[in-house]
Amino acid sequence: MKDLGPGKGTSFYIVGEISRFDQKNEMFKRSMWDPQFEQERKIYYGPSYPKEKDGFSQEDLALFVASWYLEWGFGFGTAIHNKGLFSWDPPQSAVRRLPPDIKRKVADPYWMSRQVKRVAKYFGASEVGISMTDRRWVYSHSYNIETGEHREFELPEECKYSISVALEMDYRLAKTSPTWLARAAEGKAYSMLPVVTSMLAQFIRGLGYRAIPSGNDSALSIPLAIDAGLGELGRNGCLITPRHGPRVRLGQVFTDLPLACDGPIRFGVIEFCEICRKCAKHCPGHAIMQGERTTQAHNICNSTGVLKWPINAEKCFSFWAQNRGSCMNCIRVCPFNKVAGWQHEVVRWLIHHVPTLDRLILMGDELLGYGKKARAAGYWD
Amino acid sequence: MKDLGPGKGTSFYIVGEISRFDQKNEMFKRSMWDPQFEQERKIYYGPSYPKEKDGFSQEDLALFVASWYLEWGFGFGTAIHNKGLFSWDPPQSAVRRLPPDIKRKVADPYWMSRQVKRVAKYFGASEVGISMTDRRWVYSHSYNIETGEHREFELPEECKYSISVALEMDYRLAKTSPTWLARAAEGKAYSMLPVVTSMLAQFIRGLGYRAIPSGNDSALSIPLAIDAGLGELGRNGCLITPRHGPRVRLGQVFTDLPLACDGPIRFGVIEFCEICRKCAKHCPGHAIMQGERTTQAHNICNSTGVLKWPINAEKCFSFWAQNRGSCMNCIRVCPFNKVAGWQHEVVRWLIHHVPTLDRLILMGDELLGYGKKARAAGYWD
Repeated sequence: MKDLGPGKGTSFYIVGEISRFDQKNEMFKRSMWDPQFEQERKIYYGPSYPKEKDGFSQEDLALFVASWYLEWGFGFGTAIHNKGLFSWDPPQSAVRRLPPDIKRKVADPYWMSRQVKRVAKYFGASEVGISMTDRRWVYSHSYNIETGEHREFELPEECKYSISVALEMDYRLAKTSPTWLARAAEGKAYSMLPVVTSMLAQFIRGLGYRAIPSGNDSALSIPLAIDAGLGELGRNGCLITPRHGPRVRLGQVFTDLPLACDGPIRFGVIEFCEICRKCAKHCPGHAIMQGERTTQAHNICNSTGVLKWPINAEKCFSFWAQNRGSCMNCIRVCPFNKVAGWQHEVVRWLIHHVPTLDRLILMGDELLGYGKKARAAGYWD
Repeated sequence: MKDLGPGKGTSFYIVGEISRFDQKNEMFKRSMWDPQFEQERKIYYGPSYPKEKDGFSQEDLALFVASWYLEWGFGFGTAIHNKGLFSWDPPQSAVRRLPPDIKRKVADPYWMSRQVKRVAKYFGASEVGISMTDRRWVYSHSYNIETGEHREFELPEECKYSISVALEMDYRLAKTSPTWLARAAEGKAYSMLPVVTSMLAQFIRGLGYRAIPSGNDSALSIPLAIDAGLGELGRNGCLITPRHGPRVRLGQVFTDLPLACDGPIRFGVIEFCEICRKCAKHCPGHAIMQGERTTQAHNICNSTGVLKWPINAEKCFSFWAQNRGSCMNCIRVCPFNKVAGWQHEVVRWLIHHVPTLDRLILMGDELLGYGKKARAAGYWD
């Protein structure tokens, strides 16, 4: 384990005062109330029309919309907390199958953590980690995009633990970014998040404890995932995981089930990002910084008090609207975005243990053509 | 391809008059209105209490209930059609993303069938096949278990095609049948069916066509799957698929999207079942026949006109209630229930092409200990 840098502890990259983030300022929510983004919002949330352009055919559009189906219609984890599959309390259909008031004694939280991770993976999680719920990452206020309601937010006090899950996005589809086909990779992961977290939450309820499934609706998923040991924060503003790089989406379950926690991990991401800049170069919206990490926010969409490469969410969102889709170029080109394979394991080990080779590895990554955009039409051939 | 037997055609095992099946007579629905099964129903649908018995611990119970969470609370494919994730029409959240009235021209139904299968697998289907919607398999009446409403049923006339999907159940969990842990294998497949079929249906809607996702709510899934080439009907009353044997759950999407259809397959199941009888021997409810195939129904729970080994659903259900869970012994012990592996491929080839070896293969299966019940506690170790 390398030096955790300034502000050691559960959240090693904290260098200043953290003010809890207001959900209203998250870029998608902001587009709902900030007149500056009215045009973009209308385009982004409106209907899309097939185009004569690779990755924007009717099949691509149909797959993109289908992949989001569950999240948009039944999950709501990108919208508001405690709704649909992300409901804090289970429907009667599940309640009536369980004995009332039977609480499983937890003699060994390490054993229980193992079971929770096993079950999360059984339900479809690619990675699972556990941390204490650091309240600084919980939203200060919630913002309901349907009603415009904006109010103070808190998670129940007893939910001391946070189980972070990462869901892998499809490598092949992501490689076609910034197309609608790539958006189908994103959508499927977002649609599977309520499936995995709601079923994991129900498992915990079956042991007699409180459990709250959550997407992007209650807290900042990335710092929670960092605390839970799922990865490091990269230049592209994404969580970089050891196995899938930034090609994941995140959710969590908050609970009072006694668990043993994981800690943050370091495996050379910060050092690599310092010299790499591929994501910044390939960002069509120029939303990713070229320079050094900073605590300076670009605008109200950034959280504060953390040393990082803040993303310019305004520029990012503007490109998404202009593109009439989304964009994952920063995920596609990231050298940590690889599939399973011993050769990638070797490179990961070198990045972790011999950072002096980072420049060489980066050159090799370029030479071998990793991260290049793939033809979307090839998927349907 | 072997001789398809009597009644060749899409449904090769038809030998008599098919009267469409009334959903009210499906055993789970029947337990709701038939006073003969009132006791069983109360036990089966009521709360379960952990027991000092392998496979019936609180963890096992919690996993079983969690695995069913999505189907019970949001899917309803084991209950009633056109509800929740199995809704026939999409929510506005999906409608407003698509251009109105853009219908993709289908010049090549073979190409379109490939795409539909690709997308079904992307969303999580283990196997996919396509057939014409044979109306004889569609329920004559629907029965709403919540309201008791019983009325004539028909699928929209334009839904000429049926896309059958099979979802694999977890091998390791199924091996612990008849425990609650095995029930978690069943539950996860049932919870994933609405996910896969609703997203596949939405893909088709995105191409401008009608699409209806369905579980056990609209039609008999097994004959539809047989017509779509997913497998053969076994002695245990299950669809036996070439790759996973009977260890699958079935759903379908009905549509008017022009597609090329598959046909029924034969790979030696009937011949093997004729000599095997392992499922009948290991059925704790004595619900599986030892003898020859027949067209004789045991009771109103059986459909008619088909030459098969009808299951005695009354006895099956009674054991489920007595077991305070379910049972998959007939799936667990079936010699076709195997995981991937070249050795199993060889045996499958032999069963298909050299049926004279069936007895020898059956002896080998017994000797090697396949199908033996596994300790549930081992899962949590």
